[in-house]
Amino acid sequence: MNAIDEMVRLLKRLPGMGEKSATRLCYFLIKSDDAFVEKLGESIRDIKKRISTCPICGSFIDESGCPYCNNPERDQSLLCVVEEPQDVMSINQSGAYNGLFHVLGGSINPLQGIGPGKLKLQELKDRVSEGRIKEVIIATNPTEEGDTTALYIRNMLRENNVKISRLASGLPIGGDLGYADKTTLIRSMRGRVSYSSVPDEID
Amino acid sequence: MNAIDEMVRLLKRLPGMGEKSATRLCYFLIKSDDAFVEKLGESIRDIKKRISTCPICGSFIDESGCPYCNNPERDQSLLCVVEEPQDVMSINQSGAYNGLFHVLGGSINPLQGIGPGKLKLQELKDRVSEGRIKEVIIATNPTEEGDTTALYIRNMLRENNVKISRLASGLPIGGDLGYADKTTLIRSMRGRVSYSSVPDEID
Repeated sequence: MNAIDEMVRLLKRLPGMGEKSATRLCYFLIKSDDAFVEKLGESIRDIKKRISTCPICGSFIDESGCPYCNNPERDQSLLCVVEEPQDVMSINQSGAYNGLFHVLGGSINPLQGIGPGKLKLQELKDRVSEGRIKEVIIATNPTEEGDTTALYIRNMLRENNVKISRLASGLPIGGDLGYADKTTLIRSMRGRVSYSSVPDEID
Repeated sequence: MNAIDEMVRLLKRLPGMGEKSATRLCYFLIKSDDAFVEKLGESIRDIKKRISTCPICGSFIDESGCPYCNNPERDQSLLCVVEEPQDVMSINQSGAYNGLFHVLGGSINPLQGIGPGKLKLQELKDRVSEGRIKEVIIATNPTEEGDTTALYIRNMLRENNVKISRLASGLPIGGDLGYADKTTLIRSMRGRVSYSSVPDEID
């Protein structure tokens, strides 16, 4: 069964996909309607040709161009710095932010040989030096590497006349104190906010 | 981001795929190498054109024809009856069986309006009546529907001069008594085998 074996072999290269789930997915596709399977296949085949990265902010863009840069409906004085292009979409989908983005392409990780020179940090400095940005919001991951990168950016932009902030760390909403790890608890304790400044409703 | 949104919408129709995992898979594909993504896309797009079902046994077949029917290396006197085409591959891959197959296309399920007439039961009767089959091994699922179907087949083939057997039910190998459900325990108790007939080694 060349066709099935071949597909299973390819599907197994996807994350979290073992032999069993790949086989099951293959059968699901064989039983699905023709139009859906054809569309899905073509969508996958063409995705890399359709998606590129914005030369200014580093977000994923398609034929319609960058939806963030030079968009007059977005606040051109706010710049949110993230590690990866997918972080742009997560933050944008949250609806809590309507400014510009800057994708670093990773975080500083000496153990993996990723120094500041491998990230789009000089480009960040250049963008901020143009003078239109009023606040840089650092949204690197709350990990050791993300923290190091955030600190590096804070020092790098010290002489620029911009406000620098970082996304709050703490207990995830809907979470359970009993399941929170120690570091998260320490962070949420240190970063505790006085009751009057807690928003009444989350929208 | 039409290209990404479109792919996520399609991927979400796959089993066990939510918004988050579809989005993650989409980014994984964007970052994968061109040749792999193209091959995977084409493999999915073409799968339905390449796969059909054998008109005799009902297994999935591709351009190279049915690997079971009329294969002189397989025992033409054994017929294994299964519910779905994927069951054929599971049994074949186990290596424990080297005879012919017969796919019913489901199991008797009155609640879902699936009576015997909707399954390939008459075709089974016809194949057995040809006289070359010596044993019919019923490999329907160990569920209420599978049991009903097995019983139906046993009655249907009563007048044919064939041995009829059914796959053994019991504790799965590597399982834990504490996690076995009641019905499995009852089945494995009722179907207990005397020690001398237990094979020393499982190959």
